[in-house]
Amino acid sequence: MEYRIEKDTMGEVQVPAHVYWGAQTQRSILNFPIAQDINKMPKEIIQAFAYLKKAAAITNFELGVLPAEKKELIGRVADEILARELDDQFPLVVWQTGSGTQSNMNVNEVIAYRAHVLNGGSLLDKQKFVHPNDDVNKSQSSNDTFPTAMHIAAYKILAEVTIPGIEKLRDTLQAKSEAFKNVVKIGRTHFMDATPLTLGQEFSGYVAQLNFGLKAIRNSLAHLSELALGGTAVGTGINTPDGYSELVAKHIADLTGLPFVTAENKFEALAAHDAIVEAHGALKTVAVSLMKIGNDIRMLSSGPRAGIGEIFIPDNEPGSSIMPGKVNPTQCEAMTMVAAQVLGNDVAINIGGANGHFELNVFKPVMIYNFLHSARLIGDVCVAFNDKCAVGIEPLYDNIKKHVNNSLMLVTALNTKIGYYKAAEIAQTAHKNGSTLKETAVALGYLTPEEFDEWVKPENMVGKI
Amino acid sequence: MEYRIEKDTMGEVQVPAHVYWGAQTQRSILNFPIAQDINKMPKEIIQAFAYLKKAAAITNFELGVLPAEKKELIGRVADEILARELDDQFPLVVWQTGSGTQSNMNVNEVIAYRAHVLNGGSLLDKQKFVHPNDDVNKSQSSNDTFPTAMHIAAYKILAEVTIPGIEKLRDTLQAKSEAFKNVVKIGRTHFMDATPLTLGQEFSGYVAQLNFGLKAIRNSLAHLSELALGGTAVGTGINTPDGYSELVAKHIADLTGLPFVTAENKFEALAAHDAIVEAHGALKTVAVSLMKIGNDIRMLSSGPRAGIGEIFIPDNEPGSSIMPGKVNPTQCEAMTMVAAQVLGNDVAINIGGANGHFELNVFKPVMIYNFLHSARLIGDVCVAFNDKCAVGIEPLYDNIKKHVNNSLMLVTALNTKIGYYKAAEIAQTAHKNGSTLKETAVALGYLTPEEFDEWVKPENMVGKI
Amino acid sequence: MEYRIEKDTMGEVQVPAHVYWGAQTQRSILNFPIAQDINKMPKEIIQAFAYLKKAAAITNFELGVLPAEKKELIGRVADEILARELDDQFPLVVWQTGSGTQSNMNVNEVIAYRAHVLNGGSLLDKQKFVHPNDDVNKSQSSNDTFPTAMHIAAYKILAEVTIPGIEKLRDTLQAKSEAFKNVVKIGRTHFMDATPLTLGQEFSGYVAQLNFGLKAIRNSLAHLSELALGGTAVGTGINTPDGYSELVAKHIADLTGLPFVTAENKFEALAAHDAIVEAHGALKTVAVSLMKIGNDIRMLSSGPRAGIGEIFIPDNEPGSSIMPGKVNPTQCEAMTMVAAQVLGNDVAINIGGANGHFELNVFKPVMIYNFLHSARLIGDVCVAFNDKCAVGIEPLYDNIKKHVNNSLMLVTALNTKIGYYKAAEIAQTAHKNGSTLKETAVALGYLTPEEFDEWVKPENMVGKI
Amino acid sequence: MEYRIEKDTMGEVQVPAHVYWGAQTQRSILNFPIAQDINKMPKEIIQAFAYLKKAAAITNFELGVLPAEKKELIGRVADEILARELDDQFPLVVWQTGSGTQSNMNVNEVIAYRAHVLNGGSLLDKQKFVHPNDDVNKSQSSNDTFPTAMHIAAYKILAEVTIPGIEKLRDTLQAKSEAFKNVVKIGRTHFMDATPLTLGQEFSGYVAQLNFGLKAIRNSLAHLSELALGGTAVGTGINTPDGYSELVAKHIADLTGLPFVTAENKFEALAAHDAIVEAHGALKTVAVSLMKIGNDIRMLSSGPRAGIGEIFIPDNEPGSSIMPGKVNPTQCEAMTMVAAQVLGNDVAINIGGANGHFELNVFKPVMIYNFLHSARLIGDVCVAFNDKCAVGIEPLYDNIKKHVNNSLMLVTALNTKIGYYKAAEIAQTAHKNGSTLKETAVALGYLTPEEFDEWVKPENMVGKI
Repeated sequence: MEYRIEKDTMGEVQVPAHVYWGAQTQRSILNFPIAQDINKMPKEIIQAFAYLKKAAAITNFELGVLPAEKKELIGRVADEILARELDDQFPLVVWQTGSGTQSNMNVNEVIAYRAHVLNGGSLLDKQKFVHPNDDVNKSQSSNDTFPTAMHIAAYKILAEVTIPGIEKLRDTLQAKSEAFKNVVKIGRTHFMDATPLTLGQEFSGYVAQLNFGLKAIRNSLAHLSELALGGTAVGTGINTPDGYSELVAKHIADLTGLPFVTAENKFEALAAHDAIVEAHGALKTVAVSLMKIGNDIRMLSSGPRAGIGEIFIPDNEPGSSIMPGKVNPTQCEAMTMVAAQVLGNDVAINIGGANGHFELNVFKPVMIYNFLHSARLIGDVCVAFNDKCAVGIEPLYDNIKKHVNNSLMLVTALNTKIGYYKAAEIAQTAHKNGSTLKETAVALGYLTPEEFDEWVKPENMVGKI
Repeated sequence: MEYRIEKDTMGEVQVPAHVYWGAQTQRSILNFPIAQDINKMPKEIIQAFAYLKKAAAITNFELGVLPAEKKELIGRVADEILARELDDQFPLVVWQTGSGTQSNMNVNEVIAYRAHVLNGGSLLDKQKFVHPNDDVNKSQSSNDTFPTAMHIAAYKILAEVTIPGIEKLRDTLQAKSEAFKNVVKIGRTHFMDATPLTLGQEFSGYVAQLNFGLKAIRNSLAHLSELALGGTAVGTGINTPDGYSELVAKHIADLTGLPFVTAENKFEALAAHDAIVEAHGALKTVAVSLMKIGNDIRMLSSGPRAGIGEIFIPDNEPGSSIMPGKVNPTQCEAMTMVAAQVLGNDVAINIGGANGHFELNVFKPVMIYNFLHSARLIGDVCVAFNDKCAVGIEPLYDNIKKHVNNSLMLVTALNTKIGYYKAAEIAQTAHKNGSTLKETAVALGYLTPEEFDEWVKPENMVGKI
Repeated sequence: MEYRIEKDTMGEVQVPAHVYWGAQTQRSILNFPIAQDINKMPKEIIQAFAYLKKAAAITNFELGVLPAEKKELIGRVADEILARELDDQFPLVVWQTGSGTQSNMNVNEVIAYRAHVLNGGSLLDKQKFVHPNDDVNKSQSSNDTFPTAMHIAAYKILAEVTIPGIEKLRDTLQAKSEAFKNVVKIGRTHFMDATPLTLGQEFSGYVAQLNFGLKAIRNSLAHLSELALGGTAVGTGINTPDGYSELVAKHIADLTGLPFVTAENKFEALAAHDAIVEAHGALKTVAVSLMKIGNDIRMLSSGPRAGIGEIFIPDNEPGSSIMPGKVNPTQCEAMTMVAAQVLGNDVAINIGGANGHFELNVFKPVMIYNFLHSARLIGDVCVAFNDKCAVGIEPLYDNIKKHVNNSLMLVTALNTKIGYYKAAEIAQTAHKNGSTLKETAVALGYLTPEEFDEWVKPENMVGKI
Repeated sequence: MEYRIEKDTMGEVQVPAHVYWGAQTQRSILNFPIAQDINKMPKEIIQAFAYLKKAAAITNFELGVLPAEKKELIGRVADEILARELDDQFPLVVWQTGSGTQSNMNVNEVIAYRAHVLNGGSLLDKQKFVHPNDDVNKSQSSNDTFPTAMHIAAYKILAEVTIPGIEKLRDTLQAKSEAFKNVVKIGRTHFMDATPLTLGQEFSGYVAQLNFGLKAIRNSLAHLSELALGGTAVGTGINTPDGYSELVAKHIADLTGLPFVTAENKFEALAAHDAIVEAHGALKTVAVSLMKIGNDIRMLSSGPRAGIGEIFIPDNEPGSSIMPGKVNPTQCEAMTMVAAQVLGNDVAINIGGANGHFELNVFKPVMIYNFLHSARLIGDVCVAFNDKCAVGIEPLYDNIKKHVNNSLMLVTALNTKIGYYKAAEIAQTAHKNGSTLKETAVALGYLTPEEFDEWVKPENMVGKI
């Protein structure tokens, strides 16, 4: 491979001849050969940095500390990054310095050198027209840019992937809930037969879970909307011009279309990432909901002949490499696996969040990596589950009817007529004898057949629908 | 021991002669000999049940399904429970049926039998005036009472213990932040010397963390305020009179003074406990904050002669059984241990929450046990840490001054004067030579002594205070 | 309450007049008002300290640094502690100093003062015959005694509660596996009907899980058998006589009957508790197994009329306060709740274990609290589940037969005869038409009825039994 | 893009014209659009499948159920996979069916179709010479191949990446421990000054931790060495020839050079993945150790002027984008971030492991994904930390000497001379007055200057070195 020589404050480094990155990026590649093929810094962070660098350049220009020409060039490269034209210029991994300094410098270098080239320069020029630290990073520190990028990336993915994904599934389940609102079926508590409800009511519980989850996510957005930028090295804002914090947040809000503001307390914003911990607390709540929903759907659709079999779910693929004709609830499986992952990610985030020291938390990359992973997985799996499973769910009426009509727990309707104890005797006797509730109730002399028929009607036991 | 015979739908059971509980409570003692000495059902749940049973009795009376006399008696026993006069009547443990049915029945039995005695009856009477199922449990099921008790207990402990505890600590830290607002000290990032800030600024970050945590807890109260009661067996409200749900929630709100309402969706309220998962997500966020704060305080107070030693914390006890005169940051240790516990509890809650099936989650006791544990620990430890540590924190000015004045990172002030690269050269050279920044800067010819004195002033590097 | 005055190196403290503890214990009560009603230092730790203090006294005597008379007195009090006669003398909680110093001092004080009384003295004497630090704590530090107590307590509970509990359940499941070895039933993968196996084979999987779990626990005992005692303050063994470490470990081994040895590296033994982390890794593996087993048993016994219903489990108590006659798999619920708790405890232990600093880990109490909790819960729940559920499990032959004979997955037997694709066509067609495999296979012309009967026999599809 | 038409039992699918995969792989791409850019099925699983398919083909040939020609072709393609020549033929993600069926079929299809081409056929031929199910998957099911691949991949990565990585770091720390064995320094407990030890002793604790961790990993290999292959669909071994299980395990052992054997109980091997849970329990123990070591190293090297500063660690890169000349402990940060990730992965694995149902655990992909992630991260980070940090660690003698000589805890040496209480008085007085221990001790009249000099020597307080 061809190389060129780049320099930073520590000396010279060989860099591949044609890349836009410089010495510090290259040092990071060499110093952190850790899972480099699988754990690149998430692209969402790179995109967030592009917004941030462009906003900072505009702000620096407006506040008189950066010339127009450099501002323009920085903005042009940022736009190229946003257009995904420079993806291969960001080779660093999550497992680097815990402040994300090297990814900040990677972005600074790429913007500076690409800007220099756009400006007619050559990568081989010793002096570049735009300087990574003094221009691109002006009025900034890794310590405030990386957390800013974290919040931008986190808010964006929640708004664009996670929330819409959950809403899509929620809408389908809502529609199913309404479509099934008169389908009376047996209830199950402790996995055991219980009093009836409608299939629509059962699904309404899933809808409520997702609605609460959406509310929890939205509650967490306020903290995420606060940006650290302007705090620079330790939160004091050293080396920033007056008015910088508010203005740069406004520009980021404008560029992203999201309601970002400057953080009220910059010390918290650098030293802690409780906003990420808190928002992921909402994501783990959704994961818990998805595990419940996924389990229910797969158990309700179990069978076809030796299971519960009360709903049909679409057949998407052959289910077994050895058992011909087998079909499995694979979307439920992907969804519950995602739930397991998110619950694991939560712990990684908690540990990272808890271990900041003094003025800086240095678990930033691992925290945002796990956050973005969860947010993406939840959004994607909700869409896949929706499109390939939920939309096709239909009741299997024969089984539903059979189960509800045989149920011994219809006896509960008699509590208010003959008391809990006699009702229990009827159910236990019927269970022991394998007889029906009606014949048992009459045989025990507790009611007439007519009373039974009048009082024990599944459709009257499901409340207001 | 003397016994009497009690009966339930499964037959006879020997019960200690003088206890108020009956057959089902006794069966649970026999069936679940699991950590009985250490894991009693939390007293907060028993108290919550007392509110609930009283409110249900009033509601049943008002809706015409329970006579005034029984309503009165049930209410009197509930009041005795709330006055902690019957604590020894609730012997069951967390590790029972996952619906908490046995604790619901324990309460039903104790209220019924104690009511019977209050009414002039004897525990030996076969017929009791008040019946555990048909009267005390009227219009209820374990499946809706236990989750209702969970929400009552959770909301109450947050409102009465957790939030006030955090606020107390927050207020002290806020006062310290103001008191220390002019104490310029070295900043530390990556555990390494960085640019200065004030001790007040450092503490303001802790205040911000706790304020965000309080907000997160408060955000979770809305979901907790929704009560399952009225859903009965599977959420349909079977065996409840019209208007019951709304009215009983109102009575619970009145009795507790907390803004409870009936849950909009009872199916979710029985089958899932995402409200607990979500609210504990807020508690774990606070735990993360407390770990950070506790670590910072112990590191800032480390020494006395070979540590950082920038703050004094109170000496509360001899710190070592072997090293005479040693004093340790023990309140920090209790606080960070609590944080570890809460982060563990969070996982237990997540797993419980994720594994509900169909119409009922049967991890209720383990979920609320962990929730109440965390809520209590956070509240208590904030108060202990506040009273025994935070209020006594004082700056150790000598060390603070020495550290900030020696710092090489004051060089950062020169970035905007001579650029990042030359500034770096000054710092690196001073570090190598063990010299001061000033003499190095001048020796390198980058500035005059006068320029240095004018540009490099720690007190000018801390921004707006 | 009456008080007396006690003194430590920090001054005077009021102590209840008749307790054996002294100033440092009392300070801890006052300084740590954190969950004092529910989180006492586990009794297993107090017992372990009694072994340790007795062994240390004997060793100090044998090495000539403690007179015989004091050795005897210390030993007598230790025996009283082991006989549970002094339980109320240990009031401290888990949430104290992270080294457990205060519990070490609690034991030192109680032994010294009780020894003084046994020796004819009075609690009011200013000078006690036996001194808490200079005698009872001789050749020790909290820093090596508390980790020693952790290992003693952990090893003992595993040996006496956890392992026997698991073995008991394993033996019952093994017996069931043999009893059911010819009961051919449908298999289920993905919750869907699959090829058959025997009920005995199904249970043999549970037996294998528990056997692997037992092996994992036993693998962890070697590390737990290493004792920190002799390391004193920081691992160097300051203030211990020659030969102390080996001899005191030998005496602890003799007193407990367990194979304890002195730790090879005392620095690790104080600064890290990876032995606890590792051993709890085995406990969490067992928890994972118990969750699987508990879930399977409850699902196999589900019904009675709308579930899977292939096994009978004992009815232990009425299952519902509203649904008469309902019986639930409550032992499965206790077991799976325990599993959730253990998986949460694991995280608390990991966080505690990861956050030791320099020469001491100060998350000792929270780590051992969670460890003992898990070890106890697993042992107890295995016994309860065994006695109240596993021993009574019986096949429900009617459902088993119906399920296996109807199964479409018997078609798998035809793969090697007619190939996967044609076999799949048969299964899919039968499923669509609701017909049997046999009639479908013949109708499609792929085999004769005789071939079907010869090739498709569930009892031939279960391999070697 | 050009397409060809492929068929499976569910019908026709459009597949990119030139890929070797078929209908089922393509269905999975379409059905699971979940994080497809970042969560490919780990390459280690694909490699493991190549060993497995080759071994199965050889075994099937030897047992007379597969012709030599097909055996050869399957083996050739497997070798191409192992040579990483077909990497782009495995496009599927982790979030698919929980049995990994689709990845098994992906491998089956690629091997079959590539074999057909190697045999002179065309991808457009309707009939392929080698059939994915009937030949490549012969005597197999996804249900036993995927867990077999899990064990192969897990064992291999532990043996080839994780263990060697840890050993490399352990060896360096061992060498440092020996090199520093006479460097007497202050000890720190509770982050506070304590009695002295040597730097070599401190490092010996890290060595012991890693040695225990290695032992824990090795203890877990026995369970991982058991292979599910031969269990097929549900563990009964349906559709396998006699002797298959043992022989195929032997071939896998031969091909991989690792001591694999057939699992004693195939039901456990399909339905549970406790081997993965257990082995990851060892990995999380190592993560806990690495967190401790990483924290210690960064705190010992903190400064340069306002920290502890007792060791030098190599400067690898500029540490700050704003603070010139700053150098940070970035390798410690990568290591502790890895620890956080592994502790999170552990929870995902536990949840997956706990939620198998009946004859199959369907969290296989998420479990192995997290396992391989952790194993890789630990191995890689140990090497990076070793090469870029540990090998360059050197004592900073000036600070070490200053800290130890000033320490008040040297007073501990006096316990056995003048008792704990007087020693405490000396330390407390010296602390209050800012005086030295010696002058205080003499002033208090407890010893002569000569006695002090004789009794208080740090180098005599570190025990046997």
